[in-house]
Amino acid sequence: MDRRETGSTHPESQEQAPLLLTGTGVSPGSGYGPAYLVVGDIPEPAAGSRHDGDAPAERDRAERALDDVAADLESRGARAGGEAEEVLGAQAMMARDPGLAVEVGQLIDQGVAAPRAVFEAFGKYRDLLSAAGGYLGERVADLDDIRDRAIALLTGLPMPGVPTSAAVPFVLVAKDLAPADTALLSKDVVAAFVTEQGGPTSHTAILARSMGVPAVVGCAGATSIAQGAAVLVDGSSGHVRLSPDEDEVTAARNADEARRAVLSAVSGPGATADGHAVPLLANIGGPRDLEAALAAGAEGVGLYRTEFLFLDRETAPTPEEQEEAYRAVFDAFPGGRVVVRTLDAGADKPLAFLPPPGEEPNPALGERGIRLFRRYPDIMAVQLGALARAAAGTAAKAEIMAPMVATVEEAAWFAEACRTAGLENAGIMIEVPSAAIRAADLIEEVDFFSIGTNDLTQYALAADRQVSEVATLQDPWHPAVLDLIGMAASAATAAGKGCGVCGEAAADPILACVLVGMGVTSLSMSAPALGLVRAALARHTREQCRLAAEAARSSTSPAGARTAARAELPELGSLSL
Amino acid sequence: MDRRETGSTHPESQEQAPLLLTGTGVSPGSGYGPAYLVVGDIPEPAAGSRHDGDAPAERDRAERALDDVAADLESRGARAGGEAEEVLGAQAMMARDPGLAVEVGQLIDQGVAAPRAVFEAFGKYRDLLSAAGGYLGERVADLDDIRDRAIALLTGLPMPGVPTSAAVPFVLVAKDLAPADTALLSKDVVAAFVTEQGGPTSHTAILARSMGVPAVVGCAGATSIAQGAAVLVDGSSGHVRLSPDEDEVTAARNADEARRAVLSAVSGPGATADGHAVPLLANIGGPRDLEAALAAGAEGVGLYRTEFLFLDRETAPTPEEQEEAYRAVFDAFPGGRVVVRTLDAGADKPLAFLPPPGEEPNPALGERGIRLFRRYPDIMAVQLGALARAAAGTAAKAEIMAPMVATVEEAAWFAEACRTAGLENAGIMIEVPSAAIRAADLIEEVDFFSIGTNDLTQYALAADRQVSEVATLQDPWHPAVLDLIGMAASAATAAGKGCGVCGEAAADPILACVLVGMGVTSLSMSAPALGLVRAALARHTREQCRLAAEAARSSTSPAGARTAARAELPELGSLSL
Repeated sequence: MDRRETGSTHPESQEQAPLLLTGTGVSPGSGYGPAYLVVGDIPEPAAGSRHDGDAPAERDRAERALDDVAADLESRGARAGGEAEEVLGAQAMMARDPGLAVEVGQLIDQGVAAPRAVFEAFGKYRDLLSAAGGYLGERVADLDDIRDRAIALLTGLPMPGVPTSAAVPFVLVAKDLAPADTALLSKDVVAAFVTEQGGPTSHTAILARSMGVPAVVGCAGATSIAQGAAVLVDGSSGHVRLSPDEDEVTAARNADEARRAVLSAVSGPGATADGHAVPLLANIGGPRDLEAALAAGAEGVGLYRTEFLFLDRETAPTPEEQEEAYRAVFDAFPGGRVVVRTLDAGADKPLAFLPPPGEEPNPALGERGIRLFRRYPDIMAVQLGALARAAAGTAAKAEIMAPMVATVEEAAWFAEACRTAGLENAGIMIEVPSAAIRAADLIEEVDFFSIGTNDLTQYALAADRQVSEVATLQDPWHPAVLDLIGMAASAATAAGKGCGVCGEAAADPILACVLVGMGVTSLSMSAPALGLVRAALARHTREQCRLAAEAARSSTSPAGARTAARAELPELGSLSL
Repeated sequence: MDRRETGSTHPESQEQAPLLLTGTGVSPGSGYGPAYLVVGDIPEPAAGSRHDGDAPAERDRAERALDDVAADLESRGARAGGEAEEVLGAQAMMARDPGLAVEVGQLIDQGVAAPRAVFEAFGKYRDLLSAAGGYLGERVADLDDIRDRAIALLTGLPMPGVPTSAAVPFVLVAKDLAPADTALLSKDVVAAFVTEQGGPTSHTAILARSMGVPAVVGCAGATSIAQGAAVLVDGSSGHVRLSPDEDEVTAARNADEARRAVLSAVSGPGATADGHAVPLLANIGGPRDLEAALAAGAEGVGLYRTEFLFLDRETAPTPEEQEEAYRAVFDAFPGGRVVVRTLDAGADKPLAFLPPPGEEPNPALGERGIRLFRRYPDIMAVQLGALARAAAGTAAKAEIMAPMVATVEEAAWFAEACRTAGLENAGIMIEVPSAAIRAADLIEEVDFFSIGTNDLTQYALAADRQVSEVATLQDPWHPAVLDLIGMAASAATAAGKGCGVCGEAAADPILACVLVGMGVTSLSMSAPALGLVRAALARHTREQCRLAAEAARSSTSPAGARTAARAELPELGSLSL
């Protein structure tokens, strides 16, 4: 990969920094603005640093700093709401821990300066957490974050983290971004994302696509970009150009305009060039996402994540409350399809109104999704009942599916529960490899499949979606993942039943064509991705898609699969893909 | 499942307790002895309980209890050595935490009795850990264990945990057993294991098989067995009989004798009844396991786990030290085969001489096995060099394989590194689903496969090996797992290369026949399992094995697969299987 180009337009800066960095474009479009580098580590306050002798005043300073950090975390949490509020609230609790305050106070009484006292006191807790066995305390990073914030306040360093407002939208540059960093971001603040780590399914990539903001990930050298430097980001090619001249910026803006014009020229239901219908649906988290889905021309909902109704609350949602939330979504698509996924909770998304889950060394491999329903069947029965009542009164076609199904027995159990509740269309997510491998057995039990490519890839490659060190494995273009998708789609086709895709893969316009070529019958994605996928499909015939799929599956690597598929899809160039 | 039988021989106890409990037999043979129930939770000391007014004496008592707990953990750790020593040492550190002592002291100064003070002070730490975000502090259970031990000492309750010596071997009964519980157990102390939870690949099952002790897991009602009650355990049928009469015990002992006689009648190299050779190899952790392997008639080593050389030490083992350890194993099998797995470390098995790994929410899906070598290629180069020098001087056939290979590119990279080091036979573990699915691509790059069924099952079903709540999914008999094994074996057969199995599945004599029927060319297991597998193979032809495999893969459930396979293997009855 060519990460460096000696730009002829800026000979004067040739010696200082490369003018072009290259990464993986994961959210198309171009973005231009000043670089905002997310501050990394706060330096360790010097060992042996002492205060001026006024211990009570120094103690006061330290206490105030910890308190301010806690208050800031709480207020960011309150503004963000939802899961972020929980996470940040728990962190604030740590900052307010009285044991910590006592340790800090004792050190200051011994003459240690406040920043160093904070550093050392946190160090004790840190050791306790991280020495505790093989897995390391999951919370060490949270603790470090509090420590760094308090030390930043005490030393006048810039606060780590991401600003939530800006005069001019900035290009956010970071090693990698965590969900907590991005809880409050909006399109008004961020012109583009550039991260040094991460792959096409990293948190940053998913966030950027759902915001409709251009993004480049896996961009080596990104964090050496100077704070405030002008940056032009191309989220299709993966190019990140530093200090571009005016002409380049204008050209990129014009290309963006042209791309938007091309996209808006294709509208209506999804179909291949030869008229094979491929319904294009939206992934939503609740009624609040309907507006964007309708605006982007979604023909229905392919993934309605219902857990947002259940998380962050002390009591289970009432049947009436559930019915209302479901009906709002059904009513938005009269005559359309709405695929609802039943509650997907587990050890990493615990429900406050259930007994705390057992310790799980690997929550992604634990008692989550339908497995949790086996333990609490009443929660599922109430949800299915509310769905049945909501569906009865609407003109939408309600389809209900369960997450994390691994076996024939689980599929049969869920389908039976749906029938008992009076729901006609019962399906399952295909996201566990065993379900894809034995798809021909499972399709006998249910009415449809919906493939969750993110988890399917995670399990098939044994590579955590959340860990950037294994991001290169986390690629749905991997031929083994394509094979699993092919197995599920073929089994559904043979049974005359539907097989959608609702994972991130569906939002990749090239991969979308490959999926259709393997027999996938509908595609569901975050609303901003619909236009480009619609355009890519409209430019290619079903046979071209089939050939692209065949070529991809004949490859032995993700990059090879993508290149081979592109070669069979000649009209991608007109979409700058 | 019939969990209760109204025993006619003991009409007097019919009303009190069932005389027969049934679970899953996971380690064959019968065991008889008094039940030893592992004590569960220590009851919470009453809120508001006060001491007699002498706070300094009470503080002293509390401090001594915590100190004794720490010392006991440390001495158990020192006796066990290895990984257990690390785990127990970290726990002892927690018990000696000065912050905790201060909290306990303050509560006692306020009049709170020592047991309650310990309970409350630990509660604060506990909250800090467990409130900290979604995953819960992994260490809460360790903290609770220290608390319970200290409270047991202070209140005179029996110490939780497992005794390490016994006048008469006992039947160890527990909800489930953790590695820390079992670090010091031996055959002289334990006649059999019975656990309420767990499946065929749970820690208890693996431990029992490697000790050669009968075991029944997933046995509902087990923990209601009275402390000290006489129990007869049949690790084949899964029957757990309470208060058996003398005739029953004698009959079981005789059957055991007969079984041993049948087993010892078959010896020599592994082969089917019609003479198709299937080398039977041993899984070992180091030279110390060679004696048992040789005594059980292993034809070589199918899995030499080299991580024991690397864990629990501050510096990497020197090339000379490695060479010596490898040579000791090679020299034990002149003319035989020794398959060495390169270092398999990661976030859950961190190496003290490397920088601490990043936080991983799911270590099983993280940067482990060959992925860690990509970051530290020097460690692999040194290991391969030591292996090459050791192999050069012996008469064994050295085969080297890498763990956690997921892609063609990784396989090619490892094979090239082996060739560079002068090693001729380079292979890979098949334990990631993608590697099995694309086995035909991967076999082009390497000389052999070795299937790790434990991890392969874990990933294919997305079910953690360590979590008993998902134990029913953790079954290598699942048809999807059989399919993956079949894909790998077929690809190897087509390429004329070897495909062994070194996971727990190879130790199941029925499944061993199925594996051979799918084209697996060698089987490796813990030494005590070799006899029964040798006998099962010797009683069936290769064609019978093939039919058993076909029948198993035509089923749609693990239980169905097992039943179908048994029906094709008529001579299992003579082995009480």
